[in-house]
Amino acid sequence: MGIPERQAYSLNSRKVAEATRSWLDKRGVKIEEIAELVLFLQQKYYPELTMEECVHNVEKVLEKREVQNAVLTGIQLDVLAEEGKLLSPLQEMIKNDEGLYGVDEILALSIVNVYGSIGLTNFGYVDKLKPGILERLNDKNLGPVHTFLDDIVGAIAAAASSRIAHNKQTEREVSIELPKEPGDD
Amino acid sequence: MGIPERQAYSLNSRKVAEATRSWLDKRGVKIEEIAELVLFLQQKYYPELTMEECVHNVEKVLEKREVQNAVLTGIQLDVLAEEGKLLSPLQEMIKNDEGLYGVDEILALSIVNVYGSIGLTNFGYVDKLKPGILERLNDKNLGPVHTFLDDIVGAIAAAASSRIAHNKQTEREVSIELPKEPGDD
Amino acid sequence: MGIPERQAYSLNSRKVAEATRSWLDKRGVKIEEIAELVLFLQQKYYPELTMEECVHNVEKVLEKREVQNAVLTGIQLDVLAEEGKLLSPLQEMIKNDEGLYGVDEILALSIVNVYGSIGLTNFGYVDKLKPGILERLNDKNLGPVHTFLDDIVGAIAAAASSRIAHNKQTEREVSIELPKEPGDD
Amino acid sequence: MGIPERQAYSLNSRKVAEATRSWLDKRGVKIEEIAELVLFLQQKYYPELTMEECVHNVEKVLEKREVQNAVLTGIQLDVLAEEGKLLSPLQEMIKNDEGLYGVDEILALSIVNVYGSIGLTNFGYVDKLKPGILERLNDKNLGPVHTFLDDIVGAIAAAASSRIAHNKQTEREVSIELPKEPGDD
Repeated sequence: MGIPERQAYSLNSRKVAEATRSWLDKRGVKIEEIAELVLFLQQKYYPELTMEECVHNVEKVLEKREVQNAVLTGIQLDVLAEEGKLLSPLQEMIKNDEGLYGVDEILALSIVNVYGSIGLTNFGYVDKLKPGILERLNDKNLGPVHTFLDDIVGAIAAAASSRIAHNKQTEREVSIELPKEPGDD
Repeated sequence: MGIPERQAYSLNSRKVAEATRSWLDKRGVKIEEIAELVLFLQQKYYPELTMEECVHNVEKVLEKREVQNAVLTGIQLDVLAEEGKLLSPLQEMIKNDEGLYGVDEILALSIVNVYGSIGLTNFGYVDKLKPGILERLNDKNLGPVHTFLDDIVGAIAAAASSRIAHNKQTEREVSIELPKEPGDD
Repeated sequence: MGIPERQAYSLNSRKVAEATRSWLDKRGVKIEEIAELVLFLQQKYYPELTMEECVHNVEKVLEKREVQNAVLTGIQLDVLAEEGKLLSPLQEMIKNDEGLYGVDEILALSIVNVYGSIGLTNFGYVDKLKPGILERLNDKNLGPVHTFLDDIVGAIAAAASSRIAHNKQTEREVSIELPKEPGDD
Repeated sequence: MGIPERQAYSLNSRKVAEATRSWLDKRGVKIEEIAELVLFLQQKYYPELTMEECVHNVEKVLEKREVQNAVLTGIQLDVLAEEGKLLSPLQEMIKNDEGLYGVDEILALSIVNVYGSIGLTNFGYVDKLKPGILERLNDKNLGPVHTFLDDIVGAIAAAASSRIAHNKQTEREVSIELPKEPGDD
């Protein structure tokens, strides 16, 4: 009372971060399953890469605000489409994962871009191949709507792969006594 | 009965196009107001540019599928935030036009990009200056939530400006008897 | 004398379009080879798709100014790197197709985006798999530098695939007596 | 001899970072001048913002690999256009800052995106208004070609502004005893 709603609003970053992890979990996505996609994409280039490193990199990607915004917005639209609460014809387009509807790819791109354009290829590759968890998320015979989520999960895996590529370069340069590159997170 | 829902779905492009026009109208945006933004952006470069041409170019932008997808998705999120039907903390972020929430800019960018990157500057300029209709859409003291819509309207105006730049070049080349450039729409 | 250089400059769109076709040809890329990538990407969805249609769609993509700009800029950088005429360390990064250099993907994205984000997946897929002409362009044992060109060719194929998806939808709707969707080129 | 060139290549991140700073300096751009653009953009929102903070944030932006790649590529193209060493018609388009050539905006976008889409508006705003150093870079009556550089400098200022927005939020939350948001660099 007395304080208008606008001024009372204050972003709580911790809540946003927690909701991101919690919403992924509720929609059936485990961090380990995203990490498996990362391993699938990167073990060819880094044979000693461990699942533990992949999990760590996925978690670092999920700490980025842009990623959290995309995850929350995409899952929200999936859930509303599943519940039939969107207006027609958007409801039908999202529910049926309409081929000419590209907003899911746009949100995915905003995730990939957090670690630069080098992740584009990895995103497109898993998005086409649908390995591991992506096959389940993309199965239209199951009940849930995952129009946004399957692209989002692939994008997180691609971004984590880019992060690994940056860090492996830094490690390599340190090992040959080049000074550490600053700023790469 | 007999026909599963998935197969029964069939995109109806006319309905998508009509919904785009109708939703803009219901949220208080007139084509003429977007055209005024175009005139504001372009009359310095083309002094003879008419409102009629600007209206025509806005209408051509609105015929593009990517633009329709972004308009419908953005307005849907605005409406749901206004009705308090999104989950926390996404609800608060969209309702309060949180500064670190950038999905509205991402959708806007997907509109601008339809006519190429040359529209980026025009988008940023009107989005900062908030001339004409954008001032009203951005007024937080009024009831409706337009977190997405103000960016979307600015992006449509920027895209229409890019379309005009392309067409004016074609006109100029035709007038000096260069062959018409094919494919620019 | 009298006419300063700036005013004397005048864009000639036909020359830009012709240079795009001619530079691709000089760098060993035939329109038919790009069309084969399109067929590879799309025949699963449209079994009756012909090479002729694919060639036509590649040609329509090449008429777009944004595409021409990306093709000319990318090939120019490839050629200069091949001739050793760039400054260090850019020279080494482009000549060796450095993994953390992503400007080639950025230019590719600007091509894909011309027909919307739905082409992202197709781009990433062929860029990883390197079928057909892309295998040759990506072969580092051959003399020429194609750091930009292999991404550009994949992006043109992805954009042509998106164009086909748009047009097939229009055809389908016309065939069931829905009105034609305007504006999809 | 014996070691083929491909294997001998090894990215040296420190050299890339140093070249970025050095090339900006050679083209007449001082870090302080970019920082002034940041202050121009942000002092309205953070009245106590100091030039020192702005300089620091510009320097952090310049440590990002994607930013370095865009700076080096853009300046290289400017220099080659200035020396008349590009092929026609690309040479004329870049030398004359052709309005329908948008690759400069594309590179700028890849810089802005490093700190998310919230920087788009700031980029467009300074790119239109051309305050401070941007006026000089954009002056076509002076000798040097800065077709890429003026967009790049505006993009660095916009990215630094986004970085400040993220950090100010973190500071505010820490001050009210919310836990620090992890991962925001």
